Amino acid sequence: MSEKNFNAVTLIRKKRDGKKLSAEEIEYLVRAYTTDRIPDYQMSAFLMASFLNGLNREEAAALTGSMLTSGIVVDLSDLQGKKVDKHSTGGVGDKLSLILAPIVASCGVPVPMISGRGLGHTGGTLDKLESIPGFKVDITLDRYKEIIGRHNLVLAGQTEEIAPADKRLYALRDVTATVESIPLIAGSIMSKKLAEGIDALVLDVKFGSGAFMKDHADAMTLAETLVGIGEEFGKETIAYLTSMEQPLGYAVGNWLEVKESIESLNGNGPEDVMEITHLLAGTMIYLGNKAASTEEGIEMSRKAVQDGSAMQKWIDIVEEHGGDTDVIIDPDSYRSAQFVEPVKAEASGTITEMDAFAMGMVSVELGAGRKAKEEDVDPAAGFILYKKIGDSVKAGETFAELHTNKKDVMKTAKEGMKRAITIENRNVKPLKMITHRVDKDGIHEYPG
Amino acid sequence: MSEKNFNAVTLIRKKRDGKKLSAEEIEYLVRAYTTDRIPDYQMSAFLMASFLNGLNREEAAALTGSMLTSGIVVDLSDLQGKKVDKHSTGGVGDKLSLILAPIVASCGVPVPMISGRGLGHTGGTLDKLESIPGFKVDITLDRYKEIIGRHNLVLAGQTEEIAPADKRLYALRDVTATVESIPLIAGSIMSKKLAEGIDALVLDVKFGSGAFMKDHADAMTLAETLVGIGEEFGKETIAYLTSMEQPLGYAVGNWLEVKESIESLNGNGPEDVMEITHLLAGTMIYLGNKAASTEEGIEMSRKAVQDGSAMQKWIDIVEEHGGDTDVIIDPDSYRSAQFVEPVKAEASGTITEMDAFAMGMVSVELGAGRKAKEEDVDPAAGFILYKKIGDSVKAGETFAELHTNKKDVMKTAKEGMKRAITIENRNVKPLKMITHRVDKDGIHEYPG
Repeated sequence: MSEKNFNAVTLIRKKRDGKKLSAEEIEYLVRAYTTDRIPDYQMSAFLMASFLNGLNREEAAALTGSMLTSGIVVDLSDLQGKKVDKHSTGGVGDKLSLILAPIVASCGVPVPMISGRGLGHTGGTLDKLESIPGFKVDITLDRYKEIIGRHNLVLAGQTEEIAPADKRLYALRDVTATVESIPLIAGSIMSKKLAEGIDALVLDVKFGSGAFMKDHADAMTLAETLVGIGEEFGKETIAYLTSMEQPLGYAVGNWLEVKESIESLNGNGPEDVMEITHLLAGTMIYLGNKAASTEEGIEMSRKAVQDGSAMQKWIDIVEEHGGDTDVIIDPDSYRSAQFVEPVKAEASGTITEMDAFAMGMVSVELGAGRKAKEEDVDPAAGFILYKKIGDSVKAGETFAELHTNKKDVMKTAKEGMKRAITIENRNVKPLKMITHRVDKDGIHEYPG
Repeated sequence: MSEKNFNAVTLIRKKRDGKKLSAEEIEYLVRAYTTDRIPDYQMSAFLMASFLNGLNREEAAALTGSMLTSGIVVDLSDLQGKKVDKHSTGGVGDKLSLILAPIVASCGVPVPMISGRGLGHTGGTLDKLESIPGFKVDITLDRYKEIIGRHNLVLAGQTEEIAPADKRLYALRDVTATVESIPLIAGSIMSKKLAEGIDALVLDVKFGSGAFMKDHADAMTLAETLVGIGEEFGKETIAYLTSMEQPLGYAVGNWLEVKESIESLNGNGPEDVMEITHLLAGTMIYLGNKAASTEEGIEMSRKAVQDGSAMQKWIDIVEEHGGDTDVIIDPDSYRSAQFVEPVKAEASGTITEMDAFAMGMVSVELGAGRKAKEEDVDPAAGFILYKKIGDSVKAGETFAELHTNKKDVMKTAKEGMKRAITIENRNVKPLKMITHRVDKDGIHEYPG
């Protein structure tokens, strides 16, 4: 492969001065950086210049492409059907992957899903999967292909072979205050998703207190950037903007969320969880050419829950990944934290606000998440909400239940939960869970 | 010394988000960086954020202070009188220090002058001084104090002990496209000047094709920033904005410029050189309390040239620094390049423009300057202009004379010189050499 020799300082200066870099120039930077021909200090200056001056759609796509091709790109072209995955930008209590993946697979659409671990206030799908005894996410590429070929679904952990350049860049961004840049975030997400071997992608872009993008406008920009990059790579990409103003569902914490996802597959899912799940699943089924429209896909998704085929798919896939299916069939038989205590409301009224970020941080304190990458998580830790925004509560009434194996954190955690809710004597409008759909044709209010 | 423990990422983020850092925070960053507790990649991200979001006067002063105190600050308080130095932001043919330093010293104002080497299209005072046989700029601190005590003047090279943090930061800025930031430039200049032991400072801030700040507005901002920092440190600081639209004087190149400065001290200096020299020298004499006004200072400066006292001071100081005074007394007796060739005009008309930057780069090609810090310079190389802007010229007439010891560069150098001038059939207005004075009271048009 021939490579033009660009000068790093010249390229940094170009971005510093607000100019657009060519795809070749961005590819040079990433490749030279990951092969140690450009030092960290030059890349961090470039990242800060990109953070402040932005990267446009073509630049973000070039960045994505160069990170993508820094590692393996799974080839699933032997497998029949359009392969569709879903990615969420992350939130508190977001267990939707665990519910929609078996739904979509049971409808005949192959779902190659490579997930990450949680960090900070949000959980990660991988941590949730690993709370199922025996469940193995660390698999070879051959096994990955074998599982998806057999079940239309595979749930794997990200390996060193997937977009290693993204990993290096992320580590540098983390220590140089250049994480929160929309094009850099979008490039990081898409480089990993495109490596899975997908043909199409559904994105759940969250906004609100518990999301990475608190601001709806920022979330919208991220959604547009993600869809733009998907289109640049010829992959149909549809994004939804969904609310993360309070935890999703009632359960937060790895095993607690797995339990809630099992209930959901059994037809007893929380309303907010099921509304978004069916929309995302329906869109995936539509993109996978198994439904003529998203609406038809949503109907198929509901049916897959009702007739038990999604649950059967889930049991099959857990078994294939080495997991104990007994605990899936009877989740109450398994695992609970050593200390379980209620949190009681201090006033009577209506819950008008929940600080989902603060609640996410409480779950970390309880042991359900990690503050730093190296930390372990406690699969049993977390909390169950008894009340959500709009519910009335009486002083002394339990509004949440904390689960932990660390006795000493209970007091602080309770205080944190109490501070995270606002109780007032007024009614609140029901939260709008889904505000917009973004696709190649633009931004659409939802429902349209 | 107690030190608060700040977090580097938090401080980078603060500047990234356009917020102001406290003096303590900036001092922490510089100190931690120079003691290897903050890595290059974090400092370069901070520098890029500062480049793009700016540093205000207080921040620039804090940066200056932390670089200043990273090294020795010469204490000249034992020496009577107000110590005054001059600094130029650099230009092509700028040999003013060599003329004004002996003038001011001969008028009784101590001038502690620490200079640097040339890089790129501009020369450095140190290179010029070293073109005088035997002249030693590398002296100890004790010798520095001894020489200024004896002569009211010392001419020294920058040592590793002066503002080492600036040296490290500059090296990092050089490879991360963060050089051309006004507050960073100002901090770098002032940290080195304040280390000399001065009480007051005169600044020659150049604008135009041969200056670092091509743009008059940028030069103005730099002047204001420099004066602001000086004021923050309680040092009276006066800046002038002077034109660098063509080389200053007729000679460019180290020994050639020394010769021109000797002619100037002998009363035969070029008009543009002497206009600025007397203004800067007069201002220094005023700041040194030896004149009641700049105007009176200018008169004293002129007199010091006329009565030979400045020239005598120059001979004394060259001798004190180990230089050969015979070549000062009879400069034509010494050193000329092996190859000296004329450059002839290709058309008749008036010289309406000169690209001083391009001419500076020709002088580098001839051997008079360096493209990289490690390179040596040829003291004999350079050029002499026969014509300047506004002069009429005939086709075939010599407008410049090139001096070099590298025969193979002559052809390219001649072409470069020809390209650098514009000959047209129209008159040009005489260049205004000095446009503004900036002092603690603000910006003043010059002459007022």
